[in-house]
Amino acid sequence: MKATRRPATRVQVVAYDAGTTSTRSDEVVTEEPLQIRAQGPGQPLRDVAVTMRTPGNDFELAVGYLAGEGVVGAGEDVREVRYCDVDPGEPQLYNVVTVATSRPLPDELFAGRAVVGASCGTCGKTTIEQIRVAASPVPAAAPVPMSMLVGLPAQLRGTQSVFDRTGGLHAAGHVRGDGTIVAVREDVGRHNAVDKLVGASLLSGPVVEPGDVLVLSGRVSFEMVQKAVVAGFGIIVAVSAPSSLAVAAADEFGVAVLGFTRDGAANVYSHPERIGLDA
Amino acid sequence: MKATRRPATRVQVVAYDAGTTSTRSDEVVTEEPLQIRAQGPGQPLRDVAVTMRTPGNDFELAVGYLAGEGVVGAGEDVREVRYCDVDPGEPQLYNVVTVATSRPLPDELFAGRAVVGASCGTCGKTTIEQIRVAASPVPAAAPVPMSMLVGLPAQLRGTQSVFDRTGGLHAAGHVRGDGTIVAVREDVGRHNAVDKLVGASLLSGPVVEPGDVLVLSGRVSFEMVQKAVVAGFGIIVAVSAPSSLAVAAADEFGVAVLGFTRDGAANVYSHPERIGLDA
Repeated sequence: MKATRRPATRVQVVAYDAGTTSTRSDEVVTEEPLQIRAQGPGQPLRDVAVTMRTPGNDFELAVGYLAGEGVVGAGEDVREVRYCDVDPGEPQLYNVVTVATSRPLPDELFAGRAVVGASCGTCGKTTIEQIRVAASPVPAAAPVPMSMLVGLPAQLRGTQSVFDRTGGLHAAGHVRGDGTIVAVREDVGRHNAVDKLVGASLLSGPVVEPGDVLVLSGRVSFEMVQKAVVAGFGIIVAVSAPSSLAVAAADEFGVAVLGFTRDGAANVYSHPERIGLDA
Repeated sequence: MKATRRPATRVQVVAYDAGTTSTRSDEVVTEEPLQIRAQGPGQPLRDVAVTMRTPGNDFELAVGYLAGEGVVGAGEDVREVRYCDVDPGEPQLYNVVTVATSRPLPDELFAGRAVVGASCGTCGKTTIEQIRVAASPVPAAAPVPMSMLVGLPAQLRGTQSVFDRTGGLHAAGHVRGDGTIVAVREDVGRHNAVDKLVGASLLSGPVVEPGDVLVLSGRVSFEMVQKAVVAGFGIIVAVSAPSSLAVAAADEFGVAVLGFTRDGAANVYSHPERIGLDA
């Protein structure tokens, strides 16, 4: 997948609604890594953070991030903001932003971070490889009926005890291909809910099978697909939208992603062969 | 604020609906830091990560987190999971979990992390202090009329161009106390949307004033309040719920938090003196 500066990315989806399916083009939000680097006067250039973001306003994002860390307090603290220098003939991938400050930067900002060269070479690529899981694709499994899958978010919500009272929780569910709910976990953080679910399987079983479904109360980011692949889930069913990088990763690692799963309808963004679409 | 193991926390709110206000008790989701530590056979005990989480299933969360990092692959890789050892008479705060593994852990997992002692002393406390911003409370400002504030999320949505097409974006808005929209930023990551907004103010102005409003399309976590305080916003208006730690931090740093801001109604969780409640 090539880097893009567009905030939305076009994908093909299989749209399912009350027993009928159609294939159409759809747009998902673009998600790509941005490497933020910083350099104080007389200090070496260093990596600060990698954030998964939607391209656009990248300079603002880098400066705002540093402001949140307390190292940039006013506009005059920023001397220069730039994308990385590319060698002649190399494409600018717009995935690395350097903020040069007029004040020295504290060492704590760079804890565990290496000094880097001014040129970027492959730019964001190395970062993406680092983030991308060193995991094998999820093996094939018998198709799981769509008629069961579209009902899962509503079923999951029925089990969310704390959500009902506070409205502030994300949920993640582990469901077998036959519809059996194995476990549901809630957390204020969407990633934590999935981590709890995976930890539950590791600590007390049962083991995640390639035909198993990870149900999510929210959106599907790259990191959620990464967690699903590492745990071995073949299908993700989400109430909300996936990102471009989530779809690309799911495609690569053999995971079917269902988004906008509501009221008996859903969009399939990857590996529709995992879903039994016949009514 | 004391550590709790309860997933929901009771708070007092000023409920506003179509011009009338009432004070009542409400529940918000509990958010607290969990320090995850790990130790391989013959290796020193070290910090791995701090995650803001809802208490409950903490052992699963720690093990699932390590599975996501690829260092725990099966149940037998986990030798023991425990809360930190407390000295006699000291309270167990349940904010530090140690996972002892049966396989050696890779050095990369601990990049930039110190070796820690087996006892925990103040447990999560130090962590909370580290996370908590070294910022002053936001100064007082003239009250901002509630009748204007309750309409902001709908106004913000009207300006979200990419959201309309993909349904996958978070938005953050910078609004003056008189209702003037200064800037709106979108991103797949909720924190990025706020960082872009703050960066925009630092790079091109105008400066954030204590009477200014940060509008959020989603939930209010501790980290969002932290970002608001550092940037100097006196009011947060959110479509969804705040967490317990978000309310506590807002209370401490002088920020008014409005949650469930929909259809002309909202709950005020902190500093109602910043809001003009008269119709």
